[in-house]
Amino acid sequence: MTDLGRSHFCGEITENMIGENVRLKGWARTRRDLGQVIFIDLGDQSGIVQTVFNPDISEKALNIADNIRGEYVLDVTGKVVRRDEETVNEKIATGTVEVRVEEVTILNKAKPLPFPMDEEINVSEDVRLSNRFLDLRRPQMQAIFQLRHQLTQEVRTFLNEHLFMEIETPMLTKSTPEGARDYLVPSRVHEHEFFALPQSPQLFKQLFMVAGFERYYQIARCFRDEDLRADRQPEFTQIDIEASFMNTEELFAMTEKMMARLLKVSHHLDVTTPFPRMTYHEAMHRYGSDKPDTRFGMELVELSDIVAGSEFQVFKKALANNGIVKGLNAKGQGDVMSRKEIDDLADFAAIYGAKGLAWLKVDEEKTLKGPITKFLSEDEQANILNAMAGESGDLLLFAADVQEVVFDVLGALRLKFGKELNLIDEDAFHFLWVTDFPLVEYDKDSGRYVPLHHPFTRPIEEDVDKVETAPEDVTANAYDLVLNGYELGGGSRRIHEPELQMQMFRSLGFSEEEAKEKFGFLIDALSYGAPPHGGIALGFDRIVMILTGADNLREVIAFPKTASASCLLTEAPGTVSEEQWKELHLSPRKKKANP
Amino acid sequence: MTDLGRSHFCGEITENMIGENVRLKGWARTRRDLGQVIFIDLGDQSGIVQTVFNPDISEKALNIADNIRGEYVLDVTGKVVRRDEETVNEKIATGTVEVRVEEVTILNKAKPLPFPMDEEINVSEDVRLSNRFLDLRRPQMQAIFQLRHQLTQEVRTFLNEHLFMEIETPMLTKSTPEGARDYLVPSRVHEHEFFALPQSPQLFKQLFMVAGFERYYQIARCFRDEDLRADRQPEFTQIDIEASFMNTEELFAMTEKMMARLLKVSHHLDVTTPFPRMTYHEAMHRYGSDKPDTRFGMELVELSDIVAGSEFQVFKKALANNGIVKGLNAKGQGDVMSRKEIDDLADFAAIYGAKGLAWLKVDEEKTLKGPITKFLSEDEQANILNAMAGESGDLLLFAADVQEVVFDVLGALRLKFGKELNLIDEDAFHFLWVTDFPLVEYDKDSGRYVPLHHPFTRPIEEDVDKVETAPEDVTANAYDLVLNGYELGGGSRRIHEPELQMQMFRSLGFSEEEAKEKFGFLIDALSYGAPPHGGIALGFDRIVMILTGADNLREVIAFPKTASASCLLTEAPGTVSEEQWKELHLSPRKKKANP
Repeated sequence: MTDLGRSHFCGEITENMIGENVRLKGWARTRRDLGQVIFIDLGDQSGIVQTVFNPDISEKALNIADNIRGEYVLDVTGKVVRRDEETVNEKIATGTVEVRVEEVTILNKAKPLPFPMDEEINVSEDVRLSNRFLDLRRPQMQAIFQLRHQLTQEVRTFLNEHLFMEIETPMLTKSTPEGARDYLVPSRVHEHEFFALPQSPQLFKQLFMVAGFERYYQIARCFRDEDLRADRQPEFTQIDIEASFMNTEELFAMTEKMMARLLKVSHHLDVTTPFPRMTYHEAMHRYGSDKPDTRFGMELVELSDIVAGSEFQVFKKALANNGIVKGLNAKGQGDVMSRKEIDDLADFAAIYGAKGLAWLKVDEEKTLKGPITKFLSEDEQANILNAMAGESGDLLLFAADVQEVVFDVLGALRLKFGKELNLIDEDAFHFLWVTDFPLVEYDKDSGRYVPLHHPFTRPIEEDVDKVETAPEDVTANAYDLVLNGYELGGGSRRIHEPELQMQMFRSLGFSEEEAKEKFGFLIDALSYGAPPHGGIALGFDRIVMILTGADNLREVIAFPKTASASCLLTEAPGTVSEEQWKELHLSPRKKKANP
Repeated sequence: MTDLGRSHFCGEITENMIGENVRLKGWARTRRDLGQVIFIDLGDQSGIVQTVFNPDISEKALNIADNIRGEYVLDVTGKVVRRDEETVNEKIATGTVEVRVEEVTILNKAKPLPFPMDEEINVSEDVRLSNRFLDLRRPQMQAIFQLRHQLTQEVRTFLNEHLFMEIETPMLTKSTPEGARDYLVPSRVHEHEFFALPQSPQLFKQLFMVAGFERYYQIARCFRDEDLRADRQPEFTQIDIEASFMNTEELFAMTEKMMARLLKVSHHLDVTTPFPRMTYHEAMHRYGSDKPDTRFGMELVELSDIVAGSEFQVFKKALANNGIVKGLNAKGQGDVMSRKEIDDLADFAAIYGAKGLAWLKVDEEKTLKGPITKFLSEDEQANILNAMAGESGDLLLFAADVQEVVFDVLGALRLKFGKELNLIDEDAFHFLWVTDFPLVEYDKDSGRYVPLHHPFTRPIEEDVDKVETAPEDVTANAYDLVLNGYELGGGSRRIHEPELQMQMFRSLGFSEEEAKEKFGFLIDALSYGAPPHGGIALGFDRIVMILTGADNLREVIAFPKTASASCLLTEAPGTVSEEQWKELHLSPRKKKANP
């Protein structure tokens, strides 16, 4: 046969086509050999259709079919016929018809596969990643990337409708010491200088606003050379948005509409807008997290006032050191958990910085039992029970420390119980805006203020005057969007006045010269009629992960990196030639001799 | 005023809105101060509208307007009124109305600009690039990026309609010694190893085909660390396409439809399809180029046979050395060009490798005049005149050398005359497929065959058997798409059988081990049911350049690099800290002392 196109996709064959001749191309998904008849399910991107080889139609085709194995690539010509009543397969769209094969060509063979193409496989992720070209052929993975494609298009369609313009920003850009660690690219032309791959197009999108592109977006690749956790990748994709003259309310409303459209595409679901909002302060105090999973309750309870006079040394010391005491009611766990299991909880809490984990059980008479009861007065016990809505069988857990530790420990315990006690509605989508972040935090190591987001974040209007005088008291006009306990991304209003931007740099400890050397072009840009502007960046991989129900980012990235930032398929990174080292003016750094 | 949204865009104000109150935000484009009345043209992304400040409306607003200068950012509230008959401006959409300003806030100031925002500017490109945030604000640049945005969307819409799926490929990938020079990214985790930024997603898209994604596309960023010419950038964007089971005819037809759609968007023009085709061999012989500009004629004329017996040493020597002799008729230039100008032509030709440039003029009697007539017989002269369709006043130019040099020299001269003699219809769009490229060429330096495209290119079916035995005789199933003398891009069918791919590697001089080490995963992938596939990659920046009429790539890239691969705005590349060198296990290479 010559290289002619197919007449139809496999999944397109319907009863309306009975009697028609068709030409199909695809993979031999399954093969049943009944001696004189061979059935092969032929599959392509669109679905599958049953093909039949038998000697009444073509002896030659049957002989070829005899040699066909799983995942062979076929070019098939034949006639569409109705299946016998008893062989109808209602599970597939083409289940009432089959193609009687008159001619077949094997376009390519396939070795026995390292794992089956069925939905359920039981092989290590390493094997899957090393054979990604096969792993991606599985229906499950095809569905993920089909949905990712649809979501990508929907984002663009939505933003185009809202008059946003897609503009590309450079990948070879400049390293700035702010933020995470840059991936660097040595310059061949400029000896011993480096480009950096962008952590985000932040500065470029602000420059677009200065340039009068009032509404910009890009589905942009970004890079961070950080140690990788389950939900991080060295390169990732974000929906990057910036708008001039659009206030935070308008941006929230637009973002909500966009997310609702994505839920509609993926789950045919109508999401309620506006999304709830919560200040950073409230999120930390109620959930011990700036990305609370609000699909379940079990909130943290403030106990500092109640135990202010307590003789319990742990509480007393924490409060004396400007710390706080908070509790978490692990509903019903008092009845269930053994002493050993509670000790394990303390070990878990220790990961998050807890020095210990005080606890009490509520017994049948609704009295508190446990090692620390003796340090608590009757009033204190009654107030704790009341504040924590303790009921018979509950386990009350306490953290007393500086507030960061208390949040981390109880926040982690809350999530642990949420999962283990099945408190989470896995079908629910709980969006949440977290707002009013602090502008800066004090970094003990460097003895400087560092921005919580980035140094271009604008304070709320009431706090503009305090940027240089009391930066630690300034609230940022910054926000994160949270979905089911994942931070989808965040953004802020930006500083648009050159003077305020310089104040910000100074409050971060930059000298005038440093600021100008690093960000001179920004200050310059802000001086030529920069409009008020703000934006948001949403982690697209993470959105796809949540909406496809995948359990980690590697499932939704075609060729992901492992936890050691390498590609098991191409074996990147790799060594390069001496010539390449030389052209880049680099030498390997000599290791210091071991002491 | 609080930070409320605007009610309309400036360009939206129409006569229908007379009497309405509007709130606008934008830039003060022009300002006319008539003492008691100030007119400011307020502009935003959508266009401009005239605003009027006068004491009858608001004394306060007028006082503020007094301080407004060009490109100040304003927030304006007022009423839409009809303009006086004599002030109607028919050039703009909002020319019959104006906004009487009741309230105005200066949202940001602007220093005096380094160059005006008008269409015509006369500053160096360096100044423009250093102030790109302002350069991009000019209406001309806004129009370019608006069109680029529209073309981007159209490409995607078209490919989505044709069931293509957009899938992202990694940027941090592996260096392969084939092709151009890679940009490298040192790995922090894997000491002295490097990622490479992709020159194209070639291998990944082929792996997608193996994975059963039958139609893939991506508007993909690619990187080449080459010395830059006017029409090259270190990072560039390509429309990357790959399809399984689609033959070259189908791919051509689809690509033509896509290009036609882009011409429709940019020029409201109906392009004739199918596009003409020409083999590589024919293109070289007729135009001296594999990307001929077919908007004008002046083709190269083959003279080798005619002068085969000539005593002219230059011709004789060339032919004896397996070279060829070709001519170019510079119509009418015999009458016009001085001896000095013809000598300059020879200097020009020397750039392209010519050792000299023989020429003849055709005089009024249609006889040949010039220094070489004495070496040519009357028959030869007559045959040359006839073959080259020489007429009185023509200048006949000759190149005799190995064919590569002859093509280069006459191809370059042809283009030079085409431009200088205004032979080119600047409004025309001439597409051309160039086909049937050689599969490999012999590289004298390495003493090996090297692929003309890449080592995954498939031969035409007739030549499949010769890949290992006579690679130099093999024609590739490869093609380039040319528009107006620019190569828009190209592609090929790919090798889908593991055995043929190994043959190809061997014919390129790879040992079995080398091939497996570098491309083992590809051979592996081809062994598991790889479908026949092929694709194309089109330079998107270049398409945008041609369709916007821009004269170089830097005009259509938001933040381009200069010829020395640096960014004048951010001053990338730059130095990095000692800490960063250390983390990447790198040292600066010591320069060798001068000898």
